Amino acid sequence: VFEVNWDAEAAEKGGYEHFMIKEIYEQPKAIRETMSGRLAKDDSSIIFDELKWTKDDLANINKIFIIACGTAYHAGIVGKYYLEQLARVPVEVDIASEFRYRSPLVDENTLTLVISQSGETSDTLAALKEAKRLGARTIAITNVVGSSIAREADQVIYTWAGPEIAVASTKAYTTQLVSVCMFAIYIAGMRGTLPVETIKTLIRGLRELPAQAHELLEDVEPIKTFAQQYGFAEDVFFIGRSLDYAVALEGALKLKEISYIHAEAYAAGELKHGTLALIVDGVPVIALATQHDVYEKTLSNIKEVKARDAVVIGIGLKGDKQLVKYVDHTIYIPATEKYLTPILTVIPLQLLAYYAAVTRGCDVDKPRNLAKSVTVE
Amino acid sequence: VFEVNWDAEAAEKGGYEHFMIKEIYEQPKAIRETMSGRLAKDDSSIIFDELKWTKDDLANINKIFIIACGTAYHAGIVGKYYLEQLARVPVEVDIASEFRYRSPLVDENTLTLVISQSGETSDTLAALKEAKRLGARTIAITNVVGSSIAREADQVIYTWAGPEIAVASTKAYTTQLVSVCMFAIYIAGMRGTLPVETIKTLIRGLRELPAQAHELLEDVEPIKTFAQQYGFAEDVFFIGRSLDYAVALEGALKLKEISYIHAEAYAAGELKHGTLALIVDGVPVIALATQHDVYEKTLSNIKEVKARDAVVIGIGLKGDKQLVKYVDHTIYIPATEKYLTPILTVIPLQLLAYYAAVTRGCDVDKPRNLAKSVTVE
Repeated sequence: VFEVNWDAEAAEKGGYEHFMIKEIYEQPKAIRETMSGRLAKDDSSIIFDELKWTKDDLANINKIFIIACGTAYHAGIVGKYYLEQLARVPVEVDIASEFRYRSPLVDENTLTLVISQSGETSDTLAALKEAKRLGARTIAITNVVGSSIAREADQVIYTWAGPEIAVASTKAYTTQLVSVCMFAIYIAGMRGTLPVETIKTLIRGLRELPAQAHELLEDVEPIKTFAQQYGFAEDVFFIGRSLDYAVALEGALKLKEISYIHAEAYAAGELKHGTLALIVDGVPVIALATQHDVYEKTLSNIKEVKARDAVVIGIGLKGDKQLVKYVDHTIYIPATEKYLTPILTVIPLQLLAYYAAVTRGCDVDKPRNLAKSVTVE
Repeated sequence: VFEVNWDAEAAEKGGYEHFMIKEIYEQPKAIRETMSGRLAKDDSSIIFDELKWTKDDLANINKIFIIACGTAYHAGIVGKYYLEQLARVPVEVDIASEFRYRSPLVDENTLTLVISQSGETSDTLAALKEAKRLGARTIAITNVVGSSIAREADQVIYTWAGPEIAVASTKAYTTQLVSVCMFAIYIAGMRGTLPVETIKTLIRGLRELPAQAHELLEDVEPIKTFAQQYGFAEDVFFIGRSLDYAVALEGALKLKEISYIHAEAYAAGELKHGTLALIVDGVPVIALATQHDVYEKTLSNIKEVKARDAVVIGIGLKGDKQLVKYVDHTIYIPATEKYLTPILTVIPLQLLAYYAAVTRGCDVDKPRNLAKSVTVE
C-alpha cells in the first residue's frame, strides 16, 4: 500500500482532538475557497477559467458517466441529480471497480467525470484510462494538484479543500458537491437549459453556504447527546428520498467507517420491500426529510418506522413545524435551495458519526482496516 | 393494504413445511415453463409471439429504463447487464419510488421495462404511468395475467412461475431473470448485435437451466449446516463483482426479509472504501466468485476479508479448484454461460436464507412488517 503523505506542518490538528473534527470545522472555509473566483460577480454564470471547452465541444455530448469510489461515489450520486436536473444530460454513476470491467457503452460523445479526493485512487485511475481508451472525453474533480488522476484527465476542476488527513472524508465530500454543482450550472449555462434567474438563485444560494455551514457547526450539543445516547446501537438505518437518499448513503458510510456500527441507507420507498423487517423496538433510524417534493411521502415512511417503535432522528429544514410531531429528535438545517441542501445535510451526519466513534472509543482518524487513499485494487 | 389472494387449491404446500421452500423447489419447473414455446427449435432465436414490434419500431430506441422495487429491482440490475452486453442498448435501472419523483429524462425513444411479480406494486404502477405520460414505450414483465401493470403496459411478457405465496420472492426472481435474458437475446437478434453462434450458445444454456437448478436442489445438506452454524450471526456480508454483485444484493435481501439478519451486499471492489471496517473475527462473508473476467480480483478481495478473520462461504463454479484454498466453506454451481450463472447462483442463497430463518425460528412465509404485494406507497 502506497500512502500519500502530507506536509506535517499543514497537518497539525490546531487544537482539535482529531483531524476528522478539525476537517469538519474547516468546511465553511473549504467551501468558500472552492467557490473562490468561480462565481460571476453578477451571479449570472459560473467561471471555470481552467476549462477549455466551447459550446460546440459540448454540443455533441449525449451522456455523462460519473465514476468514483467510496465517498466520492456518493458525491457522484448527488452529481447525477445536479447534471440531469439542471443541465438535462443523462448521467450514469458507476463504482470504478465495476465500471472498468463492465464493457461500458462509452464513445466519443460520452463525457467521463471522475471524482477522487487524493487523485490516486487506483480503480478510479484505471477507469479513467479505460474511458479514454474508448474515446470518451474526460474531466476530473480532485483535491490534489499534480496527482495521477489530475495528470491523466483531459481537464481538471480542483476542490480547494486543503489537505485531508482523516481517513473518513468530510470536507472533500462537501467541496466535491460544490464543484459538481458549479459544473452542472456551467454546463446548463452552455446548453441554455436554465433561465438566468434560476442560475442567479442557485449562485446566491452557493454564496450563503459557508455561513450556513458555520451556523450548523455552532451548536453541536444535541448531536453529541444523540451520539452518546445511541452510539452503542449495533445497527442504524438511514432513510430518505431523492437527494436525501444520496446524502443518507454518505451518512451511513461515515458511521460504518469510524464507529464500526452497521449502518445502512435505504431509499425510503424501498423499506417496505424488505428492510422494514429489521426495524424493531429501539432501532435508531435517521430520517432525512429536507426535500419538499417528496416530503409527504417521506413522512409516511417515517410513520411506518415509528409504528415499529424505531427511535427516529429526523433531519428537516428550519421552519418545518410538522416533522417534530412524528420523530423522537429533530435536527434542523438552514433553509436553502433544494439542490444545495445535501451540502448542509451531511454536516450533522458527519458530526453524529464522529461523536458516536468517540463515544465508542474508536480510533477516529485511523479506523481499523482502512487506508486514506486506496491505491491498490 | 390490499392483498392479492390466490386460489387456495393452487396454493397448497404439497408436503413442504413452508410455501417458500416449496417455491424454491418449484424453480426448475417454473423456469422451464417460462421458456416454453419461446426458444426456437434450431436455437437461433427467441420467439415472443406476444410482442408486436418490428425492427423499425426498435430502431430508434436509444435507452431502456428498467423500473421496479425490491426483488424485481434486483432482477433489473441483472437485466441491465443482459441488455447492455447482449443488445448494446444503454440501460438505467431505477427504484420505482425514486424514478417517479425524479423528473427522469424519458422521451419517445425510451423503452421503459417494468418488472413486478404481482403486477400490482403501487410505486411500479405509478412509475409506468409516469413513463407513458412522458411518451415512452412500455413493456412489463409480470407473473399475474390481467394485473394492473399488465393492463397498463403497451406489451407484456409473462413469467409462467405459477402463484407465489411466500412473502420472500424466489421463483418469481429466477423466472424474471430468464424472461429478461430472453428479451435481451430477442432485442439483440432484432438489432443484429450478436453472432448467431452466440445466440445458439445462450439458448442451449437456457435449455439446460431446469436440470441444473434441479441438480442444485438435490444436495442441500451442506447449506443447511452452514445456516445452522451461522444462523445466529446478526450481521452477514455478501460480496461479489459484476453479475455476482447483482446476485449478492438479492441474497442479502432474502436473508434480511425472513431471518431478520442485517445482511448487506457490497461490490467487492468497494470494500476497502468503508465496509472493511466492519469485517472482524468470525463475521460471516458470503463471497460470490462465478465470473471469470473478475475472478482474480474477487479472489484478492476474499483474501482481504480472510486476513481480518472473517468466516467465508465461497460460491464458485463446479471445476474451480482454487477457491477452496481461500475460503472456509464452498458451494459449487453447475457451470453455465456467464450470463446465466445468476439464475443458478441465487438458489443456494435462497436456501441459506430459508434455513437460517428456520434455525432462528422465524415465521418464514409471513415475516414481520412485510406484505407480499406492496400496493401502498
